[in-house]
Amino acid sequence: MSADMTQIFSEFIGTAILILLGDGVCAAVNLNKSKAQNSGWIVIAFGWALAVTIAVYVAGINGPAHLNPAVTIAMAVNGSLKASLVLPFIVAQILGGIVGAVLVWLAYLPHWNETTDQGAILGTFSTGPAIRNYPANFISEVIGTMVLVVGLLAFGANKFADGTNVFAVGGLILAIGLSLGGATGYAINPARDLGPRIAHFILPMKNKGDSDWAYSWVPVVAPIVGGLLAVGLFTFIKK
Amino acid sequence: MSADMTQIFSEFIGTAILILLGDGVCAAVNLNKSKAQNSGWIVIAFGWALAVTIAVYVAGINGPAHLNPAVTIAMAVNGSLKASLVLPFIVAQILGGIVGAVLVWLAYLPHWNETTDQGAILGTFSTGPAIRNYPANFISEVIGTMVLVVGLLAFGANKFADGTNVFAVGGLILAIGLSLGGATGYAINPARDLGPRIAHFILPMKNKGDSDWAYSWVPVVAPIVGGLLAVGLFTFIKK
Amino acid sequence: MSADMTQIFSEFIGTAILILLGDGVCAAVNLNKSKAQNSGWIVIAFGWALAVTIAVYVAGINGPAHLNPAVTIAMAVNGSLKASLVLPFIVAQILGGIVGAVLVWLAYLPHWNETTDQGAILGTFSTGPAIRNYPANFISEVIGTMVLVVGLLAFGANKFADGTNVFAVGGLILAIGLSLGGATGYAINPARDLGPRIAHFILPMKNKGDSDWAYSWVPVVAPIVGGLLAVGLFTFIKK
Amino acid sequence: MSADMTQIFSEFIGTAILILLGDGVCAAVNLNKSKAQNSGWIVIAFGWALAVTIAVYVAGINGPAHLNPAVTIAMAVNGSLKASLVLPFIVAQILGGIVGAVLVWLAYLPHWNETTDQGAILGTFSTGPAIRNYPANFISEVIGTMVLVVGLLAFGANKFADGTNVFAVGGLILAIGLSLGGATGYAINPARDLGPRIAHFILPMKNKGDSDWAYSWVPVVAPIVGGLLAVGLFTFIKK
Repeated sequence: MSADMTQIFSEFIGTAILILLGDGVCAAVNLNKSKAQNSGWIVIAFGWALAVTIAVYVAGINGPAHLNPAVTIAMAVNGSLKASLVLPFIVAQILGGIVGAVLVWLAYLPHWNETTDQGAILGTFSTGPAIRNYPANFISEVIGTMVLVVGLLAFGANKFADGTNVFAVGGLILAIGLSLGGATGYAINPARDLGPRIAHFILPMKNKGDSDWAYSWVPVVAPIVGGLLAVGLFTFIKK
Repeated sequence: MSADMTQIFSEFIGTAILILLGDGVCAAVNLNKSKAQNSGWIVIAFGWALAVTIAVYVAGINGPAHLNPAVTIAMAVNGSLKASLVLPFIVAQILGGIVGAVLVWLAYLPHWNETTDQGAILGTFSTGPAIRNYPANFISEVIGTMVLVVGLLAFGANKFADGTNVFAVGGLILAIGLSLGGATGYAINPARDLGPRIAHFILPMKNKGDSDWAYSWVPVVAPIVGGLLAVGLFTFIKK
Repeated sequence: MSADMTQIFSEFIGTAILILLGDGVCAAVNLNKSKAQNSGWIVIAFGWALAVTIAVYVAGINGPAHLNPAVTIAMAVNGSLKASLVLPFIVAQILGGIVGAVLVWLAYLPHWNETTDQGAILGTFSTGPAIRNYPANFISEVIGTMVLVVGLLAFGANKFADGTNVFAVGGLILAIGLSLGGATGYAINPARDLGPRIAHFILPMKNKGDSDWAYSWVPVVAPIVGGLLAVGLFTFIKK
Repeated sequence: MSADMTQIFSEFIGTAILILLGDGVCAAVNLNKSKAQNSGWIVIAFGWALAVTIAVYVAGINGPAHLNPAVTIAMAVNGSLKASLVLPFIVAQILGGIVGAVLVWLAYLPHWNETTDQGAILGTFSTGPAIRNYPANFISEVIGTMVLVVGLLAFGANKFADGTNVFAVGGLILAIGLSLGGATGYAINPARDLGPRIAHFILPMKNKGDSDWAYSWVPVVAPIVGGLLAVGLFTFIKK
């Protein structure tokens, strides 16, 4: 493979692992008869933080490990990624998100029929708002993604952070999840939400309801806006 | 910007992020219909620890990242900060605290009207005592801040801690929160308490009560006293 | 001792510590009158993650610290371990698993008679499925072990991970436990399951039931399959 | 001060911080009206792990930071500490334990009268067995301390652990607490138990009961035995 293809493939594999572990923790907490059922927000927040950490480790062997279209677009605008890679990265990330969600479906195969709550099943795949209010939900996702991208840029700029950056990324996801996840479930990543939502739409599950496409644009558009605002803000912070 | 202005601006941005993530976790746990409602002390303590970690990362790209008037005063007395920066740092920190609290209000916009407990709403912004007893609450905040500043000084003095100090700061906040936070909610930082209290006073929220100004001096004065005592104690420890 | 014997002995000691701490946390959460009874999945997941971290530290002073036949076989196929060590490593790991489980039995000696739930007692030693479905349980263990071995190979390949790899291994176990443990209890290690199951079979405990040998092949065979698939997948990822 | 006096004084300060934060988390979880009341074993285990981490950071600026007579004796037998320092270290550690417990009493001053459960009050200071059975409790504390001292020796011997050892010590305490703490509350340190027990005996608290001196020898003698066994075992492991 060319160097570009290797990076694109790493985005695919990395996002698949991210969603396998991230949606996996949602399955562990949401699904009936799971040993971790109802184990709470601390499990969700640590689960996603570790999901990103491990996915960045694996994808990071071949490249930058964005695993997130909002990060990819922000980095391209920032000049850290060549423009020709933006679209292939995003496609790879969304495909990875679909594959990761299918792996979660496989890993918890007998649990879907045991679970009758349609919201719990959809919540294992995609995010949804605690209180449906599109402008407010949009703002919430923008703020969360701004923290994500400002944080990532700061880790890159920070002189005392060499060698421990992967853990810092995990800590950043943990921070956003614990603090800003209560309103919308912190998608902060279009591929994290859209990929699994497509999987939810396609996969056979006796008790699944609809895939809430009406909400699906919020966790796609808002993170991209938040990432771009973060690049602007960071240019202003970093002298 | 001059080097001083850059540092002052970093204190502002860093404290805003600190309060966005720190008060954010209080909102996540306290507010009705939040996905993280009632997720407990472990979420609060980790949320604040990560809030400080991320804020120190971001503010640390331009300077010392105090984000806390008690630390700023202690470091000036200690000789680590020039005196002319003390007042601008403190003003920037308090303004950052206000802005951070406003961002939390935005991030959880539809949840304020759903929450009717006035104490839960105020507790999302500022600290309050578990048992109101001003001398005892004062002592508790002094002890907590002493641990904070002795810890920070030890990290600076510690030979084997290079490169992992940001995580150590997060661990220090986690330790204080888990162990000493039960009595007063561990302000240990005047800007962390006063800034958001001003925001609570100003922001429109249908169900908010008063801002408990009677208590507000404790989390301002006690941390400053604790920080100064810590500098004295550390001088004695460190030979 | 020869260098080989030292390594083999380290696998024995390391796996004993792994199971002492890993099965220990299951005892802490499952057994009646334990101070940690019913403290939940977050305690289980962190307990196992730290168990592996500490065991890898101790065993790592003399060698590679596999502590897992699935890893040993994968590393031999991968060319990282000479073939003559595979069988001695596996025997040492299973013996270590038995000894570790006996130490747990000792550490919680008065609690076994206070516990009457046979499933809780067996669950302190070995894994069992949340929903018994051998093909699905098998797939779940394969997926978990693939994440484990891909992650371990990525840590080895990752340039920015030097010096923090032991923590990364702990993070990997935490990730798998939180996210993929809900279906089968994440054995992902034949020695972790078979060793303690043998100990359960042998040890005197008034209220113990049978050792569920019918399930015992799943957490032995599936992790080996998952480890081999991971080596193949990683060869494909890593260019 | 002489170099020896500085080290002895550091043992005193370090153990005081250890107990302030360690018994502090017990107060946070046990005492009525604490904001962290009933927040569970995960809070206890993380609280003690961070207590040791921070105490080791602070004490470590001047010396080895044992903070534990069982470690001091083990290290003297191991040849890592000169014999003349053993007694002064132990005296400093126990005095530190008393002072730390007094600070906890101060930090939670109004909560003692609000708490009527005598066991909860004593449990804030000292450990006690879940099931009283002196030989079994003794074995449990021996096993826990063996893991502690083998782990500490491994960190010292471990080539890949430089720079992250303080976190590793915290992880070791977390591991022991989560996994082996359910039976006796994991004293694994004579100063951690005896110092606060003396403070409990002396301090005025309306609702306190007796200080359970009948049990007090177990968490003093068993950790010393465990530490010595660990030195022997480690000599055997480390080739």
